[in-house]
Amino acid sequence: MASIALLGYGTVGSGVYEILTKNKETISKKTGKDITVKRILDLREFKGTPVENIVVHDINVILEDDDIEVVVEAMGGDEPAYTYAMAALKKGKSYCTSNKVLVANHGPELLKVAKENNCNFLFEASVGGGIPIIRPINHSLTPEEILEIDGILNGTTNYILTRMNKEGLPYSEILKDAQALGFAEKDPTADVEGFDACRKIAILTSLAYGKNVKFEDIHTEGITKISNEDFKYAEAMNKGVKLLARSWREDGKQYAIVAPYMVGEDCPLSFVSGVINAILVKGNMLGDAMFYGSGAGSLPTASAVVSDIVEAVKNKGNHVPVLWEDEVVKVCDHAEIVSNFFVRVSDTVSKDDVKKTFSDVSFCEGVVPSEYAFVASGIKEGDFYEKVKVFDAKQILRVM
Amino acid sequence: MASIALLGYGTVGSGVYEILTKNKETISKKTGKDITVKRILDLREFKGTPVENIVVHDINVILEDDDIEVVVEAMGGDEPAYTYAMAALKKGKSYCTSNKVLVANHGPELLKVAKENNCNFLFEASVGGGIPIIRPINHSLTPEEILEIDGILNGTTNYILTRMNKEGLPYSEILKDAQALGFAEKDPTADVEGFDACRKIAILTSLAYGKNVKFEDIHTEGITKISNEDFKYAEAMNKGVKLLARSWREDGKQYAIVAPYMVGEDCPLSFVSGVINAILVKGNMLGDAMFYGSGAGSLPTASAVVSDIVEAVKNKGNHVPVLWEDEVVKVCDHAEIVSNFFVRVSDTVSKDDVKKTFSDVSFCEGVVPSEYAFVASGIKEGDFYEKVKVFDAKQILRVM
Repeated sequence: MASIALLGYGTVGSGVYEILTKNKETISKKTGKDITVKRILDLREFKGTPVENIVVHDINVILEDDDIEVVVEAMGGDEPAYTYAMAALKKGKSYCTSNKVLVANHGPELLKVAKENNCNFLFEASVGGGIPIIRPINHSLTPEEILEIDGILNGTTNYILTRMNKEGLPYSEILKDAQALGFAEKDPTADVEGFDACRKIAILTSLAYGKNVKFEDIHTEGITKISNEDFKYAEAMNKGVKLLARSWREDGKQYAIVAPYMVGEDCPLSFVSGVINAILVKGNMLGDAMFYGSGAGSLPTASAVVSDIVEAVKNKGNHVPVLWEDEVVKVCDHAEIVSNFFVRVSDTVSKDDVKKTFSDVSFCEGVVPSEYAFVASGIKEGDFYEKVKVFDAKQILRVM
Repeated sequence: MASIALLGYGTVGSGVYEILTKNKETISKKTGKDITVKRILDLREFKGTPVENIVVHDINVILEDDDIEVVVEAMGGDEPAYTYAMAALKKGKSYCTSNKVLVANHGPELLKVAKENNCNFLFEASVGGGIPIIRPINHSLTPEEILEIDGILNGTTNYILTRMNKEGLPYSEILKDAQALGFAEKDPTADVEGFDACRKIAILTSLAYGKNVKFEDIHTEGITKISNEDFKYAEAMNKGVKLLARSWREDGKQYAIVAPYMVGEDCPLSFVSGVINAILVKGNMLGDAMFYGSGAGSLPTASAVVSDIVEAVKNKGNHVPVLWEDEVVKVCDHAEIVSNFFVRVSDTVSKDDVKKTFSDVSFCEGVVPSEYAFVASGIKEGDFYEKVKVFDAKQILRVM
């Protein structure tokens, strides 16, 4: 038997408990051991529920219990998660977490401490919810030099964009509805401004290259400025609008960006709708591989956490190496990225001026009255933003 | 340093050599060791190529070399692969293969011998080419009771169907072209009759449930009867036509089938075009997860083989358990499967008779002159085939 403890009994934590209970037999068979939740740390009491007798309020009860071999954290945020993770790992207890903030802030350090203490720091659920992506990158794509990762990594924003596209209603209205339905938080900033996706692409990129990519270095734009007119143009150009989190390497340089893109049907990410997440990985031998599934939700995310618990229990006393060194890889300033830009301008803007300004340009007209749009392709972002100023653009989006 | 041997230096074998050479640095970093190809078994000599000095024609040179810790086979077929695999594993050498015939025929036995000899029998490349799917099922979806697997598991047939749909040309013509372009074999039987997909779904289903599902038990239909008229109806019904390999559990019974299906846009498999493969896995906690990528080709398939080599080298002397018991799970006769059927009949057939015969039926008219189609939903296949006889159907397809 293997005893574990849960830190936090909210959406994901209770999902972990539910899966360990409902799928007990399957999990035991695959682990070779029964897994028992011995303690739950939470501020609440959960009186009258099956867990009331195992709830504790003092982390030390868990840390000092030598019987507990895996600590599972689903609280979120940097502290106290970081302190708990360090303490657990130093005691030789594996630490499984869905907490992307913790992983993005302290991944390499926590992996190092896990290694020193012959245990494991595992975080499959921190990116892409239930989609297996961390383990495939670490253990399946090992022969690949990863050239590029393009992800739809935030379910809330993909849900909002999908509904804006289908229903033609404004962003603010769909957001309110999404909040009412539980698909968006009361304070949606982290999702709609792209910060959540940014942390996730930082984690994936770090694992793909084995070095530390800091999320603070990644240029990040959200979806709050997207309008229904943009979707009309997208449709006219046979494209969709997606919030993409992207990273790639070129000529030894590391690039990364989070921003809304117009995506054509030649890219399989264009078919990813609603709360679904997907990650497209391009390897130099494999070509494209895409991982697709539920990017959020109690049970899908908890499923990924439980897959980590199974791995931790199977590897008791044995650190499974994960390459993510402390050494920081500098992400190039986005001014250096070569992009394609979609620009909406008033129809008083001279097309000849646009043609003179951008070397590779195409036009899209007749979609919205009193304006037109152009796409300027293959231009460095720094140059573009300098040059586009004179046109007083109504909207600027990138095109994949 | 870890020494390995390749059995077979054809498309996949030479791809393995190429990846180990080109991505040497990446692979060494992830493995913690350099991997060297010490011997290649092939009938040919490869004079004047970089491998000429390591080519041998006698398997015993490899089997008796204690230095060689991993044997990699990309020959295909049951024998001599089976004899070689048994011999290598009994010597404690891990065996990595892309050979689905070997895996489908002898999977549980070879896993057992690997366990007894503290080595590994690995076969990521046997299903879905370069797509990581075997390892995710074995090590990521561990918390899940898998409810259903639906796959596009054969690139050749998906390529043919995609082009028939786009170009409106007949099957025979596209097949010829596919053969000329190298996307179909000279003898295309295994692909176009569904036998290849059948072995692959048998392997995936066995791993999903940990017991042995025999491919011979799976009802299998190919794509040779698909006509351009079928695509016209599919378009009218907003669907595509895909060769699906499916398996699922219901009320403790195991079902599986390989057949062409009409697939609607609500299923992400409908977007999978050309030689791409994709596998949709439904878990009871996770919901849907889809794995998508290059299902064939030298380098993608070789990439999956190399991921196995890396795992074998990292786990030298340590058998990583894989649940696939010898015990056979009987697949229900397809007569018991409840399906939806698309049927094309002459317009001389009375619609009233059709309505009287099938309880849940809808019609599709005006697509092809002198005929119409109907969809009979939710009917046991045995009953359906008995009842449909009287209508002298021009075509029968399943609908997802």
